[in-house]
Amino acid sequence: MKPGRMKPGPEFDRIRAFIAAVRATSASVEIPPGDDAAVIRWPSEESVVLSSDAFVEGVHFERAWVRWEAVGYRATAAALSDLAAMAARPAGVLISLMVPPETEESMLGALGEGVGECLRRHGAGLLGGDLAHSPSVVAIDLCAVGAARNPISRGGATEGDEIWLTGAVGGAAAAVQAWGRSLEPDPRARLAFERPTARIAEAIWLAEHADLTALIDLSDGLAGDARQIAAASEASLRMDLDAVPLAPPLSEYVTREAALSLALAGGEDYELLLCSREGSLDPVRAEFERRFQIGLTRVGVVEEGEGVAWTSASGESVPAGLDGFDHFAPGRTR
Amino acid sequence: MKPGRMKPGPEFDRIRAFIAAVRATSASVEIPPGDDAAVIRWPSEESVVLSSDAFVEGVHFERAWVRWEAVGYRATAAALSDLAAMAARPAGVLISLMVPPETEESMLGALGEGVGECLRRHGAGLLGGDLAHSPSVVAIDLCAVGAARNPISRGGATEGDEIWLTGAVGGAAAAVQAWGRSLEPDPRARLAFERPTARIAEAIWLAEHADLTALIDLSDGLAGDARQIAAASEASLRMDLDAVPLAPPLSEYVTREAALSLALAGGEDYELLLCSREGSLDPVRAEFERRFQIGLTRVGVVEEGEGVAWTSASGESVPAGLDGFDHFAPGRTR
Repeated sequence: MKPGRMKPGPEFDRIRAFIAAVRATSASVEIPPGDDAAVIRWPSEESVVLSSDAFVEGVHFERAWVRWEAVGYRATAAALSDLAAMAARPAGVLISLMVPPETEESMLGALGEGVGECLRRHGAGLLGGDLAHSPSVVAIDLCAVGAARNPISRGGATEGDEIWLTGAVGGAAAAVQAWGRSLEPDPRARLAFERPTARIAEAIWLAEHADLTALIDLSDGLAGDARQIAAASEASLRMDLDAVPLAPPLSEYVTREAALSLALAGGEDYELLLCSREGSLDPVRAEFERRFQIGLTRVGVVEEGEGVAWTSASGESVPAGLDGFDHFAPGRTR
Repeated sequence: MKPGRMKPGPEFDRIRAFIAAVRATSASVEIPPGDDAAVIRWPSEESVVLSSDAFVEGVHFERAWVRWEAVGYRATAAALSDLAAMAARPAGVLISLMVPPETEESMLGALGEGVGECLRRHGAGLLGGDLAHSPSVVAIDLCAVGAARNPISRGGATEGDEIWLTGAVGGAAAAVQAWGRSLEPDPRARLAFERPTARIAEAIWLAEHADLTALIDLSDGLAGDARQIAAASEASLRMDLDAVPLAPPLSEYVTREAALSLALAGGEDYELLLCSREGSLDPVRAEFERRFQIGLTRVGVVEEGEGVAWTSASGESVPAGLDGFDHFAPGRTR
């Protein structure tokens, strides 16, 4: 069914405006958005990979920071990033929009533009969704749907595995910090927040070319997400503080401690942290960096034990707040 | 990975409390909640059926009306009902919880109890989810995931098809109306709101035993959802006002007009409205009613044209508000 075949009315006009702006469909869809549910054909050799990700005004973003296109792009990238973290290819997303009654079609159109830009970049489509009232703020919840022949969990790291990181970290957190101080962020930091890359192609390539044992995307911060791998794998991660690649805007920070703090505890970079069998990544590293135009940096080693240990040969001290982002930790407001 | 293998911290304590309370898992799950995404094996002969459904405090429910168990049950039933509307069997749900910072583990436990009660009733499991802050109200978004060999859309009704309705309508709306007037609802109305039945087994049975051409679940009200079938099928639905089965509490309403208004425009009954080839349902109707202990009532016929026409042999007049529930119609507050 086409969206045009939904009944008339202001609610459905808004849904139509959103769908029209997204302009991203999935080839495997049998029954597209507009019916009670979407129906998708599935190849029998692939598992279904599913994740949901909520994005709330006043918590994950502020209306004053960015335009609605960026809100849509960023929320979609965050959702697709969970598929990257399993080395899954995306089929698409379902999007529940919770918006105040006074919301105009134009706002939903702008949001849809950003969603569609991100979906098309990764070959994904809009599968379905819901539009509901919210008493005040805008909330967006995305369910990302993907396929994987050999999904990679967080839980397979063992002693002796190497720990690697794609790209650089702290860019998005630098933008959030600037906005929090009523400053205009460095343009590179703003871009990291507005247009993060879900490392879908990178993850699939790495899973095919190296022997990965654990994989996670950095949504809560490098330090916190490393602890997730450690907990899931029942192993200890020894991380090298000196090796952590800082996002470009952080090089201009006055103190290295302030920069490291953002790089380690700041979330929402959506880079990949992965563990691989010793020696399996080195031979393909140069090809990876050439192909994807981002770095691939060795940042540690897996040991027996539990938790994460940070070390520094240069004697650098570990900044406070290394436990990553916890929505419910005392004193947190985000 | 087990939830116990997520890292420590107050956010993850809350997630663990919720998962522990739900106690509903799906047999087809390869990687359960707690990793970046859930992974599910899929039978090759079945399509993946997906729907998302948001449930927002102050819009879909008020904290003063019901306990958190009922909120969880009701939100889950609403999500699974979208699968019933495709004649799909549920695999499970992903649940994004958006809750204020002060939310206690006990509230999430109670919510999880209700979610689990509903999931287990339908043989479904918790597949994954997200927990995020909300600045004020509680919002719950569920993505329901199911499987169907022959999903039934809204769009296949043609001239001469019969229109049928399961159960009776208006019960949940009677409860909402009572709460809106600061009255205690009739216990049967309260039950209809708190523990609605997703007509999963009923839909699958009907799809196997009759020749269904269109199927929808009543979430926005009988009148409005009939218009959805008409729009999707590009046909007209001639509906018989006298035949509409009213939920028990409505028989005590002083005016028939007030009762009809709730039955036709009140949403959230989650009964099934379906179209079937002439004569294909009559032979199995008695067996359906015996098996499921609910009525199956013929309420109209499909004709050429568009939209919905209500008729009454007894000369009954059609109440105002027949266009069903539209979140964004002027003057609506829900």
